[in-house]
Order: sequence, then structure tokens, then C-alpha cells
Amino acid sequence: MTKDTIIEWYLEPCAEISAELTEQAQQRQAQLTKPPGSLGQLEQIAIDLASMQAKIKPTVDRVEIAVFAGDHGIADHGITEKAVSAFPQVVTTEMVKNFVRGGAAISVMAKHIDAGLTVINAGTINQQGFEAPVVDKPVAFGTGNIAIQPAMTALQCLQALSLGKDIIDGYNDATDVVIGGEMGIGNTTSATALATAFDVSTAPKLVGPGTGLDSSGVSHKLKMIEQALNRVSESRVSDDRSELELLSELGGFEIVALTGFYIRAAQRGMTILVDGFISSVAAVAACRINSNVRAWMLFSHNSAEPGHQLVLESLNARPLLSLQMRLGEGSGAAVALGLLRAACALHNQMATFQEAGVSDA
Amino acid sequence: MTKDTIIEWYLEPCAEISAELTEQAQQRQAQLTKPPGSLGQLEQIAIDLASMQAKIKPTVDRVEIAVFAGDHGIADHGITEKAVSAFPQVVTTEMVKNFVRGGAAISVMAKHIDAGLTVINAGTINQQGFEAPVVDKPVAFGTGNIAIQPAMTALQCLQALSLGKDIIDGYNDATDVVIGGEMGIGNTTSATALATAFDVSTAPKLVGPGTGLDSSGVSHKLKMIEQALNRVSESRVSDDRSELELLSELGGFEIVALTGFYIRAAQRGMTILVDGFISSVAAVAACRINSNVRAWMLFSHNSAEPGHQLVLESLNARPLLSLQMRLGEGSGAAVALGLLRAACALHNQMATFQEAGVSDA
Repeated sequence: MTKDTIIEWYLEPCAEISAELTEQAQQRQAQLTKPPGSLGQLEQIAIDLASMQAKIKPTVDRVEIAVFAGDHGIADHGITEKAVSAFPQVVTTEMVKNFVRGGAAISVMAKHIDAGLTVINAGTINQQGFEAPVVDKPVAFGTGNIAIQPAMTALQCLQALSLGKDIIDGYNDATDVVIGGEMGIGNTTSATALATAFDVSTAPKLVGPGTGLDSSGVSHKLKMIEQALNRVSESRVSDDRSELELLSELGGFEIVALTGFYIRAAQRGMTILVDGFISSVAAVAACRINSNVRAWMLFSHNSAEPGHQLVLESLNARPLLSLQMRLGEGSGAAVALGLLRAACALHNQMATFQEAGVSDA
Repeated sequence: MTKDTIIEWYLEPCAEISAELTEQAQQRQAQLTKPPGSLGQLEQIAIDLASMQAKIKPTVDRVEIAVFAGDHGIADHGITEKAVSAFPQVVTTEMVKNFVRGGAAISVMAKHIDAGLTVINAGTINQQGFEAPVVDKPVAFGTGNIAIQPAMTALQCLQALSLGKDIIDGYNDATDVVIGGEMGIGNTTSATALATAFDVSTAPKLVGPGTGLDSSGVSHKLKMIEQALNRVSESRVSDDRSELELLSELGGFEIVALTGFYIRAAQRGMTILVDGFISSVAAVAACRINSNVRAWMLFSHNSAEPGHQLVLESLNARPLLSLQMRLGEGSGAAVALGLLRAACALHNQMATFQEAGVSDA
């Protein structure tokens, strides 16, 4: 076998988007009984879904949500003098249990939108393990403290990436839309460091309060992020660091798993509805690793986390909602899912000017 | 009977909002397993609905949509040299038929959200009448051309107001949310003139393309609006013109009917989900006539019509969506309705920190 024949799974091509259906769906939109463009973003959403599904009347029937949980060394109060999160690290584990018991926002929304919900322990600090239905596949019991050491090894990074892939591989072919969510105390710190390393913007512009830090907390968080970035900068052997190296240095297991989840979804031709700040940073990573992943992404909302807007801009993304949500878990995407269904209903069921006998402009 | 005992129906008090439930709902939100405030606007929506319904767990089960149609003399191409709309006047009548046949955006959305849909001919130019299920109660066959004459008489204005009231009076007590929609070629011209007369802003700032005028069309529309406003200004007998006088001078039958619809909904204690630009101008009229109507209003979206933002600001309103929709018919409100249901599901079904055994911040 020559070197050329070996392609890592995450570099394999994504599914094709149908340009023919894009045009057909645009033509249909122009014929519906409404002033052209008057359904705003809902028109483009319907056209995008038609293009992805290669169907003139797309559907959003089968939806799958996967929430990946992981802990972050930098949020371990035992080893850091001051918190980077408003909540203690144990909350990641407690929330994983809450997800599967039905009490969390994403549990409620999954039921509300009739979506499947898979909860994955990608690497929390809980060494006792989780009972089913949690998919208990921790890469490790939390990452290293990124301020002083790499988050994970290169091998662990590939394991986390594959964990996301495996979840997609377990889905039925008929899955229309997938939503990735995350839970991990301290993960806005990791995501902000990654977004800075990916040159989305500078750390002071990207950093924010996460689950609820005050301004002194945000200053400390920024200091920790800059320390992590300096460490990575000093340790690098070349200027050209790959996204996988940066994910290993600064990531979280849940963020890397989300990255693999997105890449595989695009390879299988499933529409990705991206959630908030952390998910969008994973989306950046996925698109940098395999650029055609972007074509399979729709963006649900602009969160209250100040860096999210910049991350969305770097993806040339136009989110549907801006409700000042900042919960993660995939909750913003689950709330926005109804807009995809409304867009399909309008696109599929409205009469054309000709059918309705209505005079065109 | 003394003068003091006579109160017009539209001045009668609105239903009470429960301050006790506001507090209880706020307390519940603070106990749910999420960082405080992390569900953004959805938290306030749930609290508002709890306060209106005086129930700690509010519901949005029963929804009624009423679309009022009316024609505008200023859009009659036979009497005006140039159009104020991208569509001919006959489209109002054609769309009324499309509404009840199920082909219009609001028809599709009503079915999609499982809402009742009532279509009312409040005063189109169609002299042949409409078959059931259209509620065929035209106040007249179109308004006067507001550039040169009053839109309607004072008596017609009261009739249109009552038409909106009667629709609400026909609803079941269990109705949770009502949506008003409108259809009327030329009605952004009327609505813009009204918003200017209500001192929301100036006509040049409020005027926009409506269903799709080009810049020359918008200039002509502005000229017509200013002509109408000058006419009203010159004809007034005192500085203190009531909202009803202004509605008579500049309104449309569908806009006045919507005003009555909103006032009666608030009197009966039904939550109003306001749609786009024209509906919001009717909302201003309703709140000016009876100020407590405002407490029963939620706002669905900020439309693409440039004046809408200013009208929303004058109502101190924070809409849920901003999708660049500009269709009317109640369509933006119908699309936003799902967010009210999501807000209720989250508020009602999420576990508290105590129930879930999750550590608080």
C-alpha cells in the first residue's frame, strides 16, 4: 500500500449537496403565494434542506441529539487557586445523570421535539462509571490543566474524535438532522483558548462569563487562557500546527468528540444543526479539518457568550435565533429545530400563484 | 343614567395580571437545573405566561388565529396615478380565498401549530361576497383614498373595532393565545401614516418597501403618506385628536378590527402574540386607547419592514425572532408560537436542583 492510499477517516469526503435541487427549491419558493423573499431566512433554510436531502420537499422528521460530557483539569479547584467556572466540577457528572433522568433542559426539549437523545460520557472525572442509558466511554477522567500541560495526548484526541464518529455511525440512515450538545464545567475556557488558537479573534475579545462569572472571574479566566496559549506557543516545534494538535493541547474530550460527530454527520449526509459557543468552536475545528463539513451545517442561535458572534462570523454563519441563551447541552439547537420544521411546512404545503389563482406582482 | 356610568366597551378594564404568580414563576426559574438566566428570553416568556394565566405551569394548548382583510382606496390603481404596492388590489380578495383553501402561509402555519384559523372580510373591494368559512362582514368595499379623504367615517371605525371584538367574543374561554393577522394591498401605507400620526417617529424613518417596492416606489409612497398626514393636520379642529379619530382618518378596516381584537383579548385575559409591522401599529392603537392592553401582549418578531423596529421600541417590546420576514397574515406570530410552547415545556418539566441532586452555583 502506498502512502497515497491511506486516508484517515476524518479526511474522507463529505456527502454531496445537490446543486440541481438548490435551483429547483429556489424556483418553488418564487412561485409560492407570497411576495418574493417575504418569509426571510425560512426560505433559505427550506432551500438548504432541499439541497442537502436532494428532495424538492424536504422533511425534518427524524432528529437525533447527542450530548457529550467531559471534565477539564483547569476547572479542578484542587489544583487551581481560583475557579474558571461559577459551578464546581462535580456538576458535570451530576448533570449527566440529570440528562438521562429527564430533568435537564435538553431532556425536556428532546421529548418536546420528539428527538432521540444519547448522552455520552466522553471523559468526566467520575471514576465510578455511569449506568445505561449513558454511553460510558471516557477517554480519561478529565483533561490535563491546559494552563500548565496538554489537555490530552494525540492518541486520546483521536479516540475522542472517533467517539463522536461512532455515535453518528449508530444512527439510522433516515436521520434528517443531528444536534450535538456538550456539558463540561470549565469548557468555555477550553473553547475560548481553541477559538483564539484557530485565529478567530483575540482572547480578550472571545472570553466571557460562561455560566455566570463576575468580571473578576472573567479576568482570571482570561489570564488562564493566555497562560495556556503561551504554553502552546512556546512548546511548538513548527509554525504550522494542525487542528488536531491544537485540539490535543487545548481541547476537551467533549469538544473533540463533537468535532468527530460533525465530520461524520457531513460524510453521511446528515444535516447538522449547530448549538452555541462551545459547539460552534467544535464546528470551526471540524470545518478546518475537512472543509466540506461546512456545507452540512445550519446554525441555531447566537448565544449570550460574547465570543459566539465572532465564532459564527468566522464560519460565515447566520443563526436563526438570538434569545440570549447560554446553556449549552444542545438546548439552543433543540429550540431552533421547530423553525426548520416550520420552514419545511411552508415550503412544502403552500400553494403556488397558479394553483391558488392569485395574481403575481 | 348619568354620563359617568356610560363606558364604551373598548374602555372597560382589562383582565388582571397575577403579581403573585410572577414572583412564584421567577422563583421556579431560579431553582431549575441550569445557570440562572441561561435560557435567556424563554425564561421571561414562561414567567409572563404564568402571570397571565395565574398558573405556575402555564400552557399554550389552545391557539386561535384571526386574519382580517381590507382594501385601501390609496391602492386603487384606477384613482391613483402610481402604485403604493408591488401587487394589484385584487390580490386582497384572491388571498382571502387562498387563506380558507389552505394554500397561504398562515393556512399552512395554522395547521402546523394546530391553531384555529378564522378569516374575516373586514372590508375588501369584493362586492360579490365570500362564501363560508370566510366571515363576510365588510364594513364597506374598501376605504377612502387617505391622500385625499378620510379612510372611513367615525361610525365605520366603531363598526370595524366591534368586528374585532366579536371574533374574540366567539372564542372559547380556554383559549390560551390569540394571534391577529392582516391582509390588505396598500396597508403598509396606512399603517405608516398611522404610526407617524401616533408620534412613533417621522414618516421618512417609518416608510419602507412593504411587499416589494423599489426606491422610486418608496418615494412615491412617502409622498402619498405625507399628503395624507397634511390633509389630516389641516382638517383637524383641535390639537387633541383621539386615536379613534386618527384610525378613522388614516386606518384600514383590517387595522381597526385588529385594534378591537387586541383590546377585547386583553379584557378577556387571553395572551396576545403580536405579528409584524401592521399588526404592531394596531397594537399601538389598542394600547393608546386602553393602556392595560400592553400587559397582555407578547411580540413575535422584528420584521424586515424598516419602521417595525421603531414601532416595537415605542411599545417597549422585545420580539422573539428576527428572521427578516415581512409577509403579514399573522405568519411571523405563528412561526414564533413554537417558542412559547418550548418556554412552557422547559419551565414546567425541568427538574429543580434539589429534585435532580445537582449542586447549585
